Amino acid sequence: MGAVARDLLDGWSTVDAVDHHCHPLRRWPFTLTALELRSGFTEALDPIIPAEHVPYTAAYAGALKRLAAELGCQSREADVIERRNRLDPQTYARALFASTRTGTMLVDTGFASADSFTLPEQETALGIKQREIVRLETLAETLVKEARDVDDWFSRVRFALQAARTAGAVGVKTICAYRASLVLTSPDRDHLETEFGRLKLSTSDGNAARIGGDTLCHALLLQAARECVRLDLPLQVHCGFGDPDEDLAKASPLGLRPLFVDPIFRGLRVALLHCYPYHREAAYLCGVFPGVYMDLSLTIPFAGLEGVRAMKETLGLCPTSKLLYASDATRYPEVFFVAASLHREALAEALAELVDRGIVSHAEAIEAGRRVLIENSRHVYKLES
Amino acid sequence: MGAVARDLLDGWSTVDAVDHHCHPLRRWPFTLTALELRSGFTEALDPIIPAEHVPYTAAYAGALKRLAAELGCQSREADVIERRNRLDPQTYARALFASTRTGTMLVDTGFASADSFTLPEQETALGIKQREIVRLETLAETLVKEARDVDDWFSRVRFALQAARTAGAVGVKTICAYRASLVLTSPDRDHLETEFGRLKLSTSDGNAARIGGDTLCHALLLQAARECVRLDLPLQVHCGFGDPDEDLAKASPLGLRPLFVDPIFRGLRVALLHCYPYHREAAYLCGVFPGVYMDLSLTIPFAGLEGVRAMKETLGLCPTSKLLYASDATRYPEVFFVAASLHREALAEALAELVDRGIVSHAEAIEAGRRVLIENSRHVYKLES
Amino acid sequence: MGAVARDLLDGWSTVDAVDHHCHPLRRWPFTLTALELRSGFTEALDPIIPAEHVPYTAAYAGALKRLAAELGCQSREADVIERRNRLDPQTYARALFASTRTGTMLVDTGFASADSFTLPEQETALGIKQREIVRLETLAETLVKEARDVDDWFSRVRFALQAARTAGAVGVKTICAYRASLVLTSPDRDHLETEFGRLKLSTSDGNAARIGGDTLCHALLLQAARECVRLDLPLQVHCGFGDPDEDLAKASPLGLRPLFVDPIFRGLRVALLHCYPYHREAAYLCGVFPGVYMDLSLTIPFAGLEGVRAMKETLGLCPTSKLLYASDATRYPEVFFVAASLHREALAEALAELVDRGIVSHAEAIEAGRRVLIENSRHVYKLES
Repeated sequence: MGAVARDLLDGWSTVDAVDHHCHPLRRWPFTLTALELRSGFTEALDPIIPAEHVPYTAAYAGALKRLAAELGCQSREADVIERRNRLDPQTYARALFASTRTGTMLVDTGFASADSFTLPEQETALGIKQREIVRLETLAETLVKEARDVDDWFSRVRFALQAARTAGAVGVKTICAYRASLVLTSPDRDHLETEFGRLKLSTSDGNAARIGGDTLCHALLLQAARECVRLDLPLQVHCGFGDPDEDLAKASPLGLRPLFVDPIFRGLRVALLHCYPYHREAAYLCGVFPGVYMDLSLTIPFAGLEGVRAMKETLGLCPTSKLLYASDATRYPEVFFVAASLHREALAEALAELVDRGIVSHAEAIEAGRRVLIENSRHVYKLES
Repeated sequence: MGAVARDLLDGWSTVDAVDHHCHPLRRWPFTLTALELRSGFTEALDPIIPAEHVPYTAAYAGALKRLAAELGCQSREADVIERRNRLDPQTYARALFASTRTGTMLVDTGFASADSFTLPEQETALGIKQREIVRLETLAETLVKEARDVDDWFSRVRFALQAARTAGAVGVKTICAYRASLVLTSPDRDHLETEFGRLKLSTSDGNAARIGGDTLCHALLLQAARECVRLDLPLQVHCGFGDPDEDLAKASPLGLRPLFVDPIFRGLRVALLHCYPYHREAAYLCGVFPGVYMDLSLTIPFAGLEGVRAMKETLGLCPTSKLLYASDATRYPEVFFVAASLHREALAEALAELVDRGIVSHAEAIEAGRRVLIENSRHVYKLES
Repeated sequence: MGAVARDLLDGWSTVDAVDHHCHPLRRWPFTLTALELRSGFTEALDPIIPAEHVPYTAAYAGALKRLAAELGCQSREADVIERRNRLDPQTYARALFASTRTGTMLVDTGFASADSFTLPEQETALGIKQREIVRLETLAETLVKEARDVDDWFSRVRFALQAARTAGAVGVKTICAYRASLVLTSPDRDHLETEFGRLKLSTSDGNAARIGGDTLCHALLLQAARECVRLDLPLQVHCGFGDPDEDLAKASPLGLRPLFVDPIFRGLRVALLHCYPYHREAAYLCGVFPGVYMDLSLTIPFAGLEGVRAMKETLGLCPTSKLLYASDATRYPEVFFVAASLHREALAEALAELVDRGIVSHAEAIEAGRRVLIENSRHVYKLES
């Protein structure tokens, strides 16, 4: 990293960032295994990948080096694991989070498991303010069984979103890309009713509903988007790469075009999450549609040095008033720490490139970084400052 | 910029470039506003983008710095605007154009408005030779009302293209991407007749025709492409990003494949305009199909430092005998100036990379740049030298 | 190239690489022409490209410089050609291959012509071990005429693949992208029978069968993939760019998703060849699916400096345990030499970037390169060491 980038990092050293998209931590105490740590740095679901390949990724190799430096130990995996497991978990976690200067966490609670902190627990454990992001599909699935028909289901979803907002949620998240194509279609009414009937039937013997397919997922997403307009809540959309439940070929944010051009969604704020390798496309959308925002979470830190390159490429068409900071981290404090550190550095390097070229001044770059780290999220999520 | 790149720029300092794709200037005198200048550096149509976001783009920040250096003032927007508005518009415009060393402008007149220069006016105002590029869809729309049926319409379009050529036009431009998908299809005859019937009907109460949809747009494009072969005129195709009327997901130049492989188009010269973020794909097409050429106009200067990266990436597969220079600028001399300056610099940096690696010599790089700036366009458009 | 990259190259100087995908050499002696050498560095099929444009590509300009340095002559094309034609062809070829340190060649024999070496001839001529890769479509086409129906055809294909394995073949290669879309579909049974009937009929007057279209090609590919699982053979898939017989828009490796997620292909090893400009997508697939491997052959050396960039981008998501080395070279020793030299350098530069950033140590980078050059292929193709 060059001197200009280091100066920018210094300039942000008192900025307590808003992590606008992350997940709950695993409730401590627990003893971390190597396979668990590896799993924290890959989107693979097959255990062969962490067992045999994650050690050979730039993401994991870099994470070990960074953790070792923080822990003051050798960067061998066994050393890092052994050292961290010897520490008091809360003291350790708080130290890692303090070094990331995370001021507020917006938490997608739809990915929590039985051993996850609840948000109040997490706020207490970390001493960092937590706000909820509602995961649309998870919420909607709980409402299938009791719904009479698809309209009643949508009505219940809208009501639940409103209730979530009243309870403090600051945004809605859709994982449509994991259940269907992200190339949005206008669902056929008859097919929608048929699909909902089958979905409801699938819950008749006590099974949890699991929605999937374009018809149900797109209809639900479009309903939720309209309700987000009404409730003045932003909609987070997973796009770009993720775990292999999704088909990356169908996960470009360009497919969301109806949300940007249809007048019924006027005023909707959409936050495109992750985006890689479609970040150039996402940056274009941010550049021409007022309500579109984006982040490079997950890309940083999972994509190694591509994180830096994606950041530079994003600043081609994306105004710095449209880029948000997020970690997309989950379960382990180590992932939050690595994601946050790398994110600031990537941002510093990308903006330093603009400074080095005489495109923005040092002061403008400092302000741009502040927008990305905190101001844009405050605006999008209407957080009190 | 390194020393090698600077040497290349010096080597081209006497090359009067052909800007093979640009638009008419606004007729002066006029007083420029900040919002107008901002609008010159974005493809957004929604006024919220220039009002709130353009100042935070690399493109606009860099443009202000560059203009301020030329004007000898501070780079604050207000200073730049105030300074330029105090100058004699013709002297000012001619100075900016002189610094870009533009020798010939090929002007797409289909985007002109009431306050635009005509080509003769523009030639007089700037003292730079102007040649016309005919915009296909604009031309074709004027011929709908009088056409008996679709065949008669096509016949009139062909005749009008031939007349334009006789009147001095040197190329045809299609904006199909703004009206339809760029994934070319073979229109169904019945559907084509139906669609033309509806189009014609839409003009019955005096409204101007506006063509749209794959059937009409693809049929028209394919007709024009055949006529271009016959008339020995190149066909410019807008591809890649542009204003939000287009769906970027459907604007890759790869969709134009029928133009490159169908024997009925043998000999057709196609110039792919803009291309980003599909410039790697465009470069591939240039590398394998004899008649395909490309440019990075619009990408430079709208995409910030992505312009330099796109240029480097393009030189991976695109022969320097296939790359064309254009600004795609419109209305304000400032946009022409910034586009032209950045374009030469990006070209110099990309070729310098090849020199630094020992892939081409300094002399070869100078010649390559000359091809891009002037020779390739002379060849494609059959301009007298 | 920086000092770190040079150190890595030195560290690999005794590693005899496995070239896991290449083609037969032209039987010597012959006198090489300039057009032939140019044709060796382009995917174009139209002779206008080598005649007029290849000299203006980074790939060919760089190849001439590199060959001239090896031959000790000027880098003008005529000098290089004249010098190499004066040398004893076997001594010359062996010298070029020795400098590439190629230890084993896995040869796709489906692209051989009458003047190509057979594998035993090539092994003798070069003194390098040769192993066969069976080209699926070529093999299957020879079995159409004798097959009673489509099931009998598939049965014969399976039997022939097994026989090839018994005869020493170590992998199967599909060129589906040249004959159909690479977006795999589940062929309709009736349509498959109809298409096979037409294919068989086309051979009735002695013509060779030529398969094409999604139905036949996808059904064949899926059959072969299942047989590869049974025979424990890896399946090589051409994806990304290639000659203009293919539609690049339909050649992304993401379309192969059924091979990665359908349980009937569990255990299948797939090697994605070439990949550019979809190498980021390929790297993602390598990162989440255990059986997926990739290479950047063809991209290096045909895409100029994009080869280095593609290598860096690939190391974002692709573990170094999943990347394979190949030249994809054919016919002329010069192409093998340039491809191999550039490939090692690109690998060194990409890994050096990780060393420079403190992400991997020098020792880890040396080991990573060794995996790419030899170990991963030994594992995928079950080569004796």
